[in-house]
Amino acid sequence: MTPDELYRTVMAVDPPVVATPFDAATRQFLFGEVWNRPGLSIRDRRLVTIACVAGADATKPIDDQVYAALASGDLTLDEMNEVTLHFAVYCGWPKASALEWSVLVQWNRIHEERGEEVPPPAARPNAELGVTDLDERIRLGQDEFEAVNLLPPPPPISPYFHAGILNFVFGHVWRRPGLDRRDRRLVTIACVGLSDAQTPIDSHVGSALGSGDLTWDEMQEVILQFSAYYGVAKGEALQAAAQRWRASQP
Amino acid sequence: MTPDELYRTVMAVDPPVVATPFDAATRQFLFGEVWNRPGLSIRDRRLVTIACVAGADATKPIDDQVYAALASGDLTLDEMNEVTLHFAVYCGWPKASALEWSVLVQWNRIHEERGEEVPPPAARPNAELGVTDLDERIRLGQDEFEAVNLLPPPPPISPYFHAGILNFVFGHVWRRPGLDRRDRRLVTIACVGLSDAQTPIDSHVGSALGSGDLTWDEMQEVILQFSAYYGVAKGEALQAAAQRWRASQP
Amino acid sequence: MTPDELYRTVMAVDPPVVATPFDAATRQFLFGEVWNRPGLSIRDRRLVTIACVAGADATKPIDDQVYAALASGDLTLDEMNEVTLHFAVYCGWPKASALEWSVLVQWNRIHEERGEEVPPPAARPNAELGVTDLDERIRLGQDEFEAVNLLPPPPPISPYFHAGILNFVFGHVWRRPGLDRRDRRLVTIACVGLSDAQTPIDSHVGSALGSGDLTWDEMQEVILQFSAYYGVAKGEALQAAAQRWRASQP
Repeated sequence: MTPDELYRTVMAVDPPVVATPFDAATRQFLFGEVWNRPGLSIRDRRLVTIACVAGADATKPIDDQVYAALASGDLTLDEMNEVTLHFAVYCGWPKASALEWSVLVQWNRIHEERGEEVPPPAARPNAELGVTDLDERIRLGQDEFEAVNLLPPPPPISPYFHAGILNFVFGHVWRRPGLDRRDRRLVTIACVGLSDAQTPIDSHVGSALGSGDLTWDEMQEVILQFSAYYGVAKGEALQAAAQRWRASQP
Repeated sequence: MTPDELYRTVMAVDPPVVATPFDAATRQFLFGEVWNRPGLSIRDRRLVTIACVAGADATKPIDDQVYAALASGDLTLDEMNEVTLHFAVYCGWPKASALEWSVLVQWNRIHEERGEEVPPPAARPNAELGVTDLDERIRLGQDEFEAVNLLPPPPPISPYFHAGILNFVFGHVWRRPGLDRRDRRLVTIACVGLSDAQTPIDSHVGSALGSGDLTWDEMQEVILQFSAYYGVAKGEALQAAAQRWRASQP
Repeated sequence: MTPDELYRTVMAVDPPVVATPFDAATRQFLFGEVWNRPGLSIRDRRLVTIACVAGADATKPIDDQVYAALASGDLTLDEMNEVTLHFAVYCGWPKASALEWSVLVQWNRIHEERGEEVPPPAARPNAELGVTDLDERIRLGQDEFEAVNLLPPPPPISPYFHAGILNFVFGHVWRRPGLDRRDRRLVTIACVGLSDAQTPIDSHVGSALGSGDLTWDEMQEVILQFSAYYGVAKGEALQAAAQRWRASQP
């Protein structure tokens, strides 16, 4: 595909005219190069990219990527909403609120463009909130922590680990249906990459590789996609984490 | 107090020698000006500052501020741990994990310096995780949302609003003991400020003022403290939000 | 110059009335102190500052700084556009798109204020995208990497290093005319500082000093300028990197 054809496929709209060095380099690098590569599907690249634009608080890129993900059919509305919750956990609710809003607006826009009625959103059933027995919930959180991180779970000795990590992040969010674990890893790697927290970067890059959920070559594509959208400065930390993981393997 | 005396009071260690223009300007501005101002207590300024350094992933400043908060006695270990959880919610778990780790290390360092044994951390009781009846929990989350934001709660129509905002953020975290609502506002304003999310900035700056939890003059001090630690570029967005709130008042 | 005179020189507009402690402290600190210092030109300080406000997604500060850079004549439109592309590479396309948009809007505003016609932007010739022989391009990228980083280039063994770093970042962007290498270093140091990526911070602070492109005293001014706009928490990491570099010198 030419850069313009790929632009159409990825962004689900016609490419705008190139007027500046920024435009020219973007078109050439992003759509002539990055999105065009084999090794990672466009849907996978979207999960990385949506986390990047939401992390950057970039209003128009958020709208453009959300529109493209939904209009292309690569993500359903439910999947897109799960991405928002997962992103909120990893990058905070304030940044996520812009993504949440964008999903609503772009969903309406897509229906309007197609001359379709937007179905009114239904309230979520509270049963969806998961196990209510607290001991069971913490136990499930410990199991999920171990399955995701390939590490023993932390002891519940602080509000951060107890109410946060075990009860909510792994006791509920990672266990929700709607996105599978590999999908959640793609969002998470982008989130820890842009949050630049060293330990979570090592942990999530390493466990994505160690679990086999992402191959080495897929991880390399994730890092390139991330670097294109969040910059090479932060991309280097993901790359270094991948290399540390590989060096640690027997 | 001279800048050096104030440095000792705030940082709980002797001031290092000033060796560079960067050192000189920050000593003069931070400790000759910002921390010295009336209108906001040093403890309040710590809550803003800890969120700033944690948001910046600034390893040494995190350690220095956590040490100072604990060693000065301005924050207890339990309060400091609550700050970490609250920060995790607003800026994401990856950034919070460095803060969590720093609290553990600095707590040990303080005991070591004092020749005291560190008491082993106790596991938190699961009962602390709050109401288990899900309908009741969502209802409490709606009430808390309204009390904090001075706005009607969002309908539970997406995972972000339902499992996230109503169930966890307002149904649990804001309702935890250990920090009062005004304390949580100070942390939150810094968090939304550094996350640059427009709607949450307006909402939290406005509701802190509208609730009377912070006076106008206190808010100005919060914004100055934030700007000193997270930069005037992001500080300006808080200032603009405060001014919009004031302009909206009859 | 008084703070007000300096404000006029730097910002290219009359200073607004000081109404709050935040205004008073920033006026005094930024325009009575930081921009006023010898050791780094105002144009150099702009390159650092523009990267900071763009990194902070700070809408009004972006507009104000872009307007000031163009209206003062310190940066031409072409130079400003090159800053945008360079910033995009280091902090990601989403954040850069707000800067790109601001340049267009402020350029129009300046012409409008002067009663001049805005010349329509010309499409960029594709020849500007550089060498198309891919072996040659990677070779040039390796040379440029070495010249900028004072380190041997990475092997092209991953998409990040191959398609990203060697092909695009050093094979094209750093080699573009429009900004010289020292200009690009000023933008880059601010970008890696705000991204808090440890390896790139050490690498770019060290190579700017090691190459002689920036003297020690100039670097101290860069760090102070950065700290004023992006906060002392992140500024401290740049300062630590500069000190590590100096300690490593024979």
